[in-house]
Amino acid sequence: MSILVVGSVALDSVKTLEGESNEALGGSAVYFSLSARQFSRVSLVGVVGRDFPKAFREALSSRGIDLSGFKEMPGKTFRWVGRFGKDISDPKTLATHLNVFKDFRPNLSAAHSRHPVVFLGNIDPELQSEVLAQMRAPAIVACDTMNYWISSKPAALKELLSRVNIFFGNEEEAKKLTRQTNVLRAANIISEWGPSVVVIKKGEHGAVLRAGRKFYVFPAFPLETVKDPTGAGDSFAGGFMGYLTAAGDFADIEHLKRAMLYGTVMASFNVEDFSTRGLENLDRDSIDSRFDDLLSRLSVSRDGVLTA
Amino acid sequence: MSILVVGSVALDSVKTLEGESNEALGGSAVYFSLSARQFSRVSLVGVVGRDFPKAFREALSSRGIDLSGFKEMPGKTFRWVGRFGKDISDPKTLATHLNVFKDFRPNLSAAHSRHPVVFLGNIDPELQSEVLAQMRAPAIVACDTMNYWISSKPAALKELLSRVNIFFGNEEEAKKLTRQTNVLRAANIISEWGPSVVVIKKGEHGAVLRAGRKFYVFPAFPLETVKDPTGAGDSFAGGFMGYLTAAGDFADIEHLKRAMLYGTVMASFNVEDFSTRGLENLDRDSIDSRFDDLLSRLSVSRDGVLTA
Repeated sequence: MSILVVGSVALDSVKTLEGESNEALGGSAVYFSLSARQFSRVSLVGVVGRDFPKAFREALSSRGIDLSGFKEMPGKTFRWVGRFGKDISDPKTLATHLNVFKDFRPNLSAAHSRHPVVFLGNIDPELQSEVLAQMRAPAIVACDTMNYWISSKPAALKELLSRVNIFFGNEEEAKKLTRQTNVLRAANIISEWGPSVVVIKKGEHGAVLRAGRKFYVFPAFPLETVKDPTGAGDSFAGGFMGYLTAAGDFADIEHLKRAMLYGTVMASFNVEDFSTRGLENLDRDSIDSRFDDLLSRLSVSRDGVLTA
Repeated sequence: MSILVVGSVALDSVKTLEGESNEALGGSAVYFSLSARQFSRVSLVGVVGRDFPKAFREALSSRGIDLSGFKEMPGKTFRWVGRFGKDISDPKTLATHLNVFKDFRPNLSAAHSRHPVVFLGNIDPELQSEVLAQMRAPAIVACDTMNYWISSKPAALKELLSRVNIFFGNEEEAKKLTRQTNVLRAANIISEWGPSVVVIKKGEHGAVLRAGRKFYVFPAFPLETVKDPTGAGDSFAGGFMGYLTAAGDFADIEHLKRAMLYGTVMASFNVEDFSTRGLENLDRDSIDSRFDDLLSRLSVSRDGVLTA
């Protein structure tokens, strides 16, 4: 099975306490693709301007990501300028230049419309719905969103969710979308709107999975240095969706739990370096080795528990 | 083995989004004792005023907590008035009346000075040192602290830590104490100062254990309703220390990891009701059953992982 991902492709300029990057490769669809391709075939649908560096395109195509839906348009590529301070979970947006992304209207090819799994990255929910309408009969529809769309197009987002199987959102987004102060209650409401699987990302505090009316909880991989948190959520979604697509099973709880750990692992590699550098040259052995490492840090054996 | 706990005994008035309590039983030593007594014998050393309700004293003694070091002094009992808003991790202190607690100078009995395990609850670090000096030959010394002492007596606190085996602190405290922005680096520094085991509590985001130069990570038990977070950290420490004291082993990593889960479980029961009500009538079966429940929500089997 292969995944179709639709989302942003960007040139990011990011400053953190650990350094900075300038006009580096970024965007939700890029982080997702570079993460998911470790597990499954991935087709990226996105748009860039004439200024998009050839080297960045090759960074994707040379890693097996299908770019037949990667459009170049007259104008400049989408740019984001951000800064992370002491609180690594709270980026400050200094500038957003939509450029060619403003007029992004994905037109899926016949081949792309037949993908069994689609990830609708964080774009306008009306656009996410348009993409979904072009899909023939997707087995699994997943989506992400962000505060901007929750504020500006809540009705469109809710309408989209009724046709979504897997929802990804961070803690603040889930609370805001449902007007709840408790993240689990927020996940319950989102699930009532459609998605049977809800994944709430909490950055350095881990992630929560709601599946089969039950909550599963996971810590983040412990890192002493986080260089650049940009793209962590999309890297997480890429690992999660990539693993499940390879498994060919989105319902089995053991697979879903392993997918949470793979998401956690991919996000941890991503934040260890600026831009997409933490993901680019990873191999599957390093990923599985960190998966085992994470397991050893959270697994507890019931045996040997003493009774009073 | 039995645990000696020295700390505050308070009458708390707390308001949260879920309700309120007025002059209810509280204090670090109380929460710790009610949690730890599920696993080990506990002796509580603390001070109250003449106004301390007899029913509260009985709530402790009837549950097997040794109150021979529980002093009543002329004057009023320590009071804390606080409020929790939308952000359940950030209490607002409306009033603190130290009352008799201001002149608290614990004088350990011969029997108490021979306890093998001591938990120095969140009081003045100079007082924590005085208590420690009275102990004959404690096998394990654990302590907690708070922002107030980190700001006002950092040198005394650091001096104390050189004689401490197990440090408990929350994320903000650990960062502040070490002037770090990353909580793991903070734990490394605290460990260099003395404690070979460092436990960082992150409230609803779980907890981190540093032991044997390695980090172990745990999520909180998922709760849709948190009525009153007061005492969660001390309930966690009580479960952690109580379990290890019963095990008679503070070095084995499998025991330490299980202790983290028991701490998590005890904290989760505590926050489900106001004051100490969530802890008072618990039995060990309910605790072990939630331990198993938590395990089922975070354990992932390596078997069946697919390779690309």
